[in-house]
Formats: sequence, C-alpha cells, structure tokens
Amino acid sequence: EPEPIDINIPDNYVQHTLKTQKELPPITWSNWYRELQWISVLALTITPALAIYGAFTTKLTWQTGLFSVFYYYVTGLGITAGYHRLWAHRSYNASKPLQYFLALAGSGAVEGSIKWWSRGHRAHHRYTDTELDPYSAQKGFWWSHVGWMLFKPRRKPGVADVSDLSRNEVVRWQHRWYVWLILGMGFGLPTVVPGLLWGDWWGGFFYAGALRLTFVHHSTFCVNSLAHWLGETPFDDKHTPRDHVITALVTIGEGYHNFHHQFPMDYRNAIKWYQYDPTKWFIMACQWVGLASHLKTFPDNEVRKGQLTMQLKRLRETQEKLTWAPDSNDLPIVSWDSFQEQSAKRPLILIAGFIHDVASFLDEHPGGRHLLVKYIGKDATTAFFGGVYDHSNAAHNLLSMHRVGILQHGYRQSLDDKAIPPAQRLRIARY
Amino acid sequence: EPEPIDINIPDNYVQHTLKTQKELPPITWSNWYRELQWISVLALTITPALAIYGAFTTKLTWQTGLFSVFYYYVTGLGITAGYHRLWAHRSYNASKPLQYFLALAGSGAVEGSIKWWSRGHRAHHRYTDTELDPYSAQKGFWWSHVGWMLFKPRRKPGVADVSDLSRNEVVRWQHRWYVWLILGMGFGLPTVVPGLLWGDWWGGFFYAGALRLTFVHHSTFCVNSLAHWLGETPFDDKHTPRDHVITALVTIGEGYHNFHHQFPMDYRNAIKWYQYDPTKWFIMACQWVGLASHLKTFPDNEVRKGQLTMQLKRLRETQEKLTWAPDSNDLPIVSWDSFQEQSAKRPLILIAGFIHDVASFLDEHPGGRHLLVKYIGKDATTAFFGGVYDHSNAAHNLLSMHRVGILQHGYRQSLDDKAIPPAQRLRIARY
Ligand code: HEM
Ligand code: HEM
Ligand SMILES: [Fe+2]
Ligand SMILES: [Fe+2]
Ligand SMILES: [Fe+2]
Ligand SMILES: [Fe+2]
Repeated sequence: EPEPIDINIPDNYVQHTLKTQKELPPITWSNWYRELQWISVLALTITPALAIYGAFTTKLTWQTGLFSVFYYYVTGLGITAGYHRLWAHRSYNASKPLQYFLALAGSGAVEGSIKWWSRGHRAHHRYTDTELDPYSAQKGFWWSHVGWMLFKPRRKPGVADVSDLSRNEVVRWQHRWYVWLILGMGFGLPTVVPGLLWGDWWGGFFYAGALRLTFVHHSTFCVNSLAHWLGETPFDDKHTPRDHVITALVTIGEGYHNFHHQFPMDYRNAIKWYQYDPTKWFIMACQWVGLASHLKTFPDNEVRKGQLTMQLKRLRETQEKLTWAPDSNDLPIVSWDSFQEQSAKRPLILIAGFIHDVASFLDEHPGGRHLLVKYIGKDATTAFFGGVYDHSNAAHNLLSMHRVGILQHGYRQSLDDKAIPPAQRLRIARY
Repeated sequence: EPEPIDINIPDNYVQHTLKTQKELPPITWSNWYRELQWISVLALTITPALAIYGAFTTKLTWQTGLFSVFYYYVTGLGITAGYHRLWAHRSYNASKPLQYFLALAGSGAVEGSIKWWSRGHRAHHRYTDTELDPYSAQKGFWWSHVGWMLFKPRRKPGVADVSDLSRNEVVRWQHRWYVWLILGMGFGLPTVVPGLLWGDWWGGFFYAGALRLTFVHHSTFCVNSLAHWLGETPFDDKHTPRDHVITALVTIGEGYHNFHHQFPMDYRNAIKWYQYDPTKWFIMACQWVGLASHLKTFPDNEVRKGQLTMQLKRLRETQEKLTWAPDSNDLPIVSWDSFQEQSAKRPLILIAGFIHDVASFLDEHPGGRHLLVKYIGKDATTAFFGGVYDHSNAAHNLLSMHRVGILQHGYRQSLDDKAIPPAQRLRIARY
C-alpha cells in the first residue's frame, strides 16, 4: 500500500521549499537551445508538420472528416472527463468499463500517462500562480500553453499526493503500456478505422491522426493558457483563472476555469444549464446509464457566497467612486436664530432637521421655483415628505447633497430613515 | 400673467384632499353604462371600427403602407417628444418652428390638447399610484390603459401646475384650434397626401388615418399600462413604473419608464446608447440642427446611486438567504485542556483561534483525510493558511461553517482577516 507522499509534510513546507530548493537559471536567448526537452519538442512539432504535409497531399473525404471530428471529441473527453475530472480531481466515481474507455481515449490525446498528468495538475491547483505551479500563468501566456513542456522545468513542481492513483488498477495498467497505447490510440486506430471501413488509410493517418491530435493538444493546452487570461472572475479573484465561453467552446467545456479553480472537485465546470460544458453532459449521461456515480458538487450555499463577494467587491468600487452627502458629524450645528438670520442672505430650507442651501437648485427644481422660495427660512419637512409632493428617492438623495447644517434642538438626529438619504440606507461595509 | 396654481398649497395638501374630497362610487357591473364618458368611448371605438372596415374593403398599396408607418412615427413623436418630454416635463427647450411642428404632429395623435394632456400627466407623476393619479396603475392594467378615459374620473386629479403652458403661445394656439387640428392632422392630411400623390384617397383615410391612429393610441396608452407592469426596476422600486425593451419598442422609446419616473425631467428615457429610445435620438438630432437646446439630464452621480441601491437591495436578499458561519459571540470559549480532552472523542482542529469539528468533512477533504487527521487536537493555522496549502477563499468560507468554539487565550479575536471568512469581509449593512 503506497502512503500519501505528503503525510509527513512540515507546517511550513511551501515557504521552506521556495527558500531552499535550487532553481535552474531562467530561459534566455543565449541558453534556450540547451534547455529544450527533446521528446516534447519532437511530439509537438512533428505532429503538426505531418498534419500540414497531409493537408497538401491527401484529399479529405467527408467520412474521414466526420470521423476526425468525432475522434477529436472522444480523445478530448478522455482528457477532460477522464484525466482531469475523474483522476486528477476525483469529482465522481467511474465503473471499470468507463475507466478503461477513458484511459484508452485519453491515451489517444498523447499528453502523458494519467499518473504523470494528474501529478502535475494537482500541483497546478495546489500552488496556482506560484513558483511551484508547473504551468504557472504568471510566467506568461506561452509558457503556460507549451513553454513548460518544451523546456526543462526550472523547478520540481510542488509536492502533490497521487497515492490514490498508484493504487488504481486502470491507471497502473495505462502507465505500464503507455508507449503502445499512444501509438495505437493516437495513430493506429484513427488510421485503421477509415482504412478498413472506407479505404482511406492515408486520410485516416493525416486527418484523424495527426491533424486531430494537433487540435486536441492545443485545445487542452488552452485550459492552462487561455483559461488563465481571458474572461471574468465571478467566483473569486485571488488567482488568474477566468471564465469565458470562448475558452469553453475551444476546450470541450473546461472554460469556466474561475469556477473550476475555486471548486476543483466539482464534476461541473459550468453551473448554468445554458453554458457550454459537454464534459459535464457526458458525465451526467454516464450516470444515467449507470457507468458513473457519486458526482460531487460543492455546496450551493458556498458557491453563492463566492459570487456575492465578487459582486460586492465590484459594487463597492462604485460606492467609493460616487460622491455622497456630507457626513452629519462634519456639519455645523446652527441655532434657530442664526438659521433665520442666514436665510435672509441665502435660500436656506429646513427639512428633517437638516438645513439645506438650495441656491444652485432654485431654478432647477422640477416642481417650480415658487415652491422652494415659499419655504426659505421655514421647515418644509411635511411638504417635502408627501404633504405637497412625495418626492422620489432620487430627490431625497439630491436633497442630501445640499446639506449645510443641522438645526440645534431640531429634528432628532437618530439613525432615522428621514435623516439618512435612501441611497445611504444600504451600504457595503468592510469588517 | 397666470400664477402657479399651487403657490398657496398647504403643507398637508395630499392627506387633506384624500380625506375630505368627495369621490364618485366605484364602477360596477350595475352602474358602468351610466358612467361612460361618451366622447372618448366614441373616439376609441369608431377609429378601430373604421380601420377594420377599411382593411376588408380597401386594398393596401405599398406607398400608403409606407406612408402610414412614417406618419405613425411623426404623430407618435408629436406625443413623446412634444407633449411628453417637451411640454409636460420641460426636459429641453424647443425653437418655435419645432414647437409648431410638434404641436401639429401631436394633434394628429388625437389625445387631447397639450394643455389638457400635460395637466393630467403632471398629476400622474406627482401622485403616482395614488388616488390622485388620474391613471393609477394600482387600479389595474385596463384602467390605466383606457378605463380612465372611457369612464368619468372617480376623483379630480391632484393639483398640478401648468401655468408655464398657459403662458406658451404655441400651446395656447393649439388649444384654441384643437378641434380643427385633430380633423386636419388626424384624418385630413393622411387622406390628402396619398390621395393627391398617388391617388389612394380611401387607402389614405383608412390606413394612414384610422388604422395608424388606432396604433398611435394604444402605443401611447401602453406607457400608462404596460410600462407600469412589465419589466425590471433598476433605478427605484418605490412605485410601479418598470423598464422593458418590449414596452420601448411599442412606444417609440418610452419603455424605460422606471428611469423616467425617477428622473422625469431628463430628456432621455434610455441612458445606454444601445437601448431603443428614438424619441431621445430625435431630440438629439434637433439639437444638432439647432432646433432644440438645453437638453436636461439628471446628474450621473445621483442616477448611479439609485442603481447601486437597487443592486444592493437584491444582493441583500441573497445575503439573507445564505447560511453564514456561527457568530463569534455565540461560540463557547474553550480551554486548551478541554480542547485536548474533546479531541480524543471527535476530530477537532484549531485554526486561527477557532476550534472546528471536521467529523463530517474528513472523507470529503480534497487534500485527503490524512492531512486532517494529522492535525486533530493541534493548531493547523500555518498549514491551512499556505504553509502546506494556501486554501481558496471557498475553503476558508467552508471552514468557518465548522466552527464550534473559540480557544481561550488563543489567537487574538480581533476584526482580523484571519478570523473573518472571506465571504463575510464585505457585508451589506442597513443603517
Ligand atoms: C431643496 C429641496 C428640494 C429638492 C432637492 C427637490 C427636488 C425635486 C425633484 C428632484 C423633483 C423631480 C421629481 C422627483 O424626483 O420626485 C421634484 C419635484 C417636485 N417638487 Fe421638489 N424638491 C425640493 C423641495 C420641494 C418642496 C419644499 C416642495 C413643496 C412645497 C416641492 C414640491 C415638488 C413638486 C410639487 C414636484 C413635482 C413636480 C411635477 O412632477 O410636476 N419640492 N422636487
Ligand atoms: C477543516 C479544515 C479544512 C478544510 C475545510 C479544508 C478544505 C479544503 C478544500 C475545500 C480544498 C479544495 C481546494 C480549495 O478549495 O482550495 C482543500 C484542498 C486541500 N487541503 Fe484542505 N481543508 C482543511 C484543512 C487542511 C489542512 C489542515 C491541510 C494541510 C495540512 C490541508 C491541505 C489541503 C491540500 C494539500 C489541498 C489540495 C488538494 C489538491 O488540490 O490536490 N487542508 N482543502
Ligand atoms: Fe488552471
Ligand atoms: Fe483542474
Ligand atoms: Fe407613468
Ligand atoms: Fe412622464
């Protein structure tokens, strides 16, 4: 029985590792060719080269075209529903047949074995955006897209436990036969099917094999690059992951990456029914036919807390940008006599205990100048609050902007609705 | 010089009027035919009857069809840009030629003179949704659409000053010649233009006259009915007015009625460029060619306050529906010894001074059961806050739900970010 690798991890593992672990020098124009990881470089250049060569030399038949698209989805789902949501995140349980299907399909995407892939991916989640993240978006779009594979990693990815995968029979089987599986599923099967069924061997090899694989590659790579760059952060903005429908379209539904990083063990990436997440639909379909079970979801209460926080963050920016009424504590207390005396010089109106200077508003008043003039030096509370006209909340807010003083012994200055302009009754506060 | 009618209005006019003014009995199945207002009944039944008769007897030519649509917009704008935004609300200044054009066009909509119409409309704004509102939406959709015209009003509309209109030469001219103007603009002109230009006298009369008028009628009536029923309240929800694009499409842009009731002297009804408000576009065009000036807008700062308040109201409902961590004041203070003793019986973990019971979470923990078990009876603050894994804000929120006690003399329980779950740092508070 393998033990979890992090069972004896110290309390300060992250800080300690960052401080003491050696790092390779950064990739530069003068050293890059010495730092290449040749296996990945070859796999990621020969495949598209074959695809381009094939496109110029081999006619595309509609059968092979359709089959290539179909096989793109099959092998893509091997990664998204298999490698990613099942094995890396344990977001549901899959029966043996489904596991073998996903392991085979995922092999056809030629992205390393489940075990290797999940180990890196768990580190990506555990140390997102840090030096211990194998494909940190902080190192730039191209680094997170392919750079991290083309070059030798500058550091070992941070510790991540995959002992559960080491115990899994299907994962072990795939890891063991991996080289044969990529040859068979990546090129063999997509060549043989069009070859035997409609005689298009070369078309199968170039289109369903090489071209399809190029697309699957960059499609899944987009989850590490595009999904950390494009879109909104509706659930949390602590890290780079973002939600965008374009990324979702390109990645078979993995584009709601802000949600995914916040709730990684949720089998869904998109939570709304109308959002594009075919990987989720596939997992649901597997559940319906009995191949999958225990689909995990994060409690809705906590999901909505995240959304609420983000909305409040945004509204708080608005709140801080707006100009608000002067604070009651900053206004002078004015005696009745002084109010009378001042009113002879400028148009002061008393409403709800506050003295307002309406000089700039006399000719703007939609109810007419005459109604304001009438109340200079007087208390217009009743008239303003509905006796003559039940002013809109907007009018109340505007009124508060004209406050210049508080009448001594006047209207009780409590936390009363009349003293607080409507727009200031609900406020976003920070604790 | 006419004086404003409300210059000597008492402080408690509204309450006093509602209490003392006599009201006619409600319309019922037994009295309705005695309460009909025959002029309106005839105008609003004969016009559509003519339109229907015409549709069955007269072929519609494309020229007359196009002209009818065009004339629908002309006479509709007479009401929306003229009667409504210019005269009832004084939301901009119009040169004499524009005023005559709008007065003529508005006459073609056959909805009463500018003076009569504005007096009622100002009362509608001043006493929205109350007994003093001539077309109060509180009395039902059909009452606000046509009922208020078909039957004798149950009460006099509340006082509203139109002395500015009594001083206006164009308004006075239109009021004086009103009967001739509706005949000429409502039926004469739309019959004569198609008649003289392409020989379609009857088509002009039925389509550009009667049918077009029926549409203009119900189009503008929709501002009183549909616009008080359908849609959202993004600026204020004190009264019935609502914003909806469908109402806007039907009413030449008057469908952003929630905005309009909140900011009635704003020449715009829609504030976003992509919203459908051709009346606003028309007024802007008139400004460009020098026919209109002094287009009034409500200060953006105050508009945004209204929007903010409404958004906070909605988010506060979410905030209240969600389940939050137990209040620190409700948690027991637990000594270190008691924490140790209890930890032997159930899985208690100390983080940031709070004791958490993670029994229900042990097997759910995405980082694995082993990492939690390791910390039973111990302080996991450093590990949880990034030493081992820098948990997501969602994880922090979830953690707070497991709080069962506070360690005595433990972590300083201040208003510190570690003690307050991320989702509770920003809160909507009511003053
Ligand atoms: C400085 C104090 C005042 C401010 C800032 C103010 C503001 C406003 C505003 C913004 C409106 C437009 C409609 C609305 O938003 O509800 C309005 C309309 C009106 N105001 Fe005032 N007002 C003030 C004082 C008064 C007073 C003291 C009276 C009465 C004695 C009064 C009577 C009216 C009336 C009758 C209207 C309705 C106009 C109409 O819709 O035809 N206002 N006021
Ligand atoms: C009751 C206390 C705990 C709760 C509620 C909790 C919650 C969670 C949650 C929700 C995740 C998923 C990822 C995320 O949302 O950030 C997670 C992951 C993780 N937790 Fe905890 N955790 C707790 C205690 C701990 C402790 C004490 C440790 C370390 C000693 C730890 C280590 C980890 C690790 C390493 C992961 C990453 C798993 C991965 O992405 O592969 N957790 N935890
Ligand atoms: Fe990611
Ligand atoms: Fe992931
Ligand atoms: Fe209205
Ligand atoms: Fe209006």
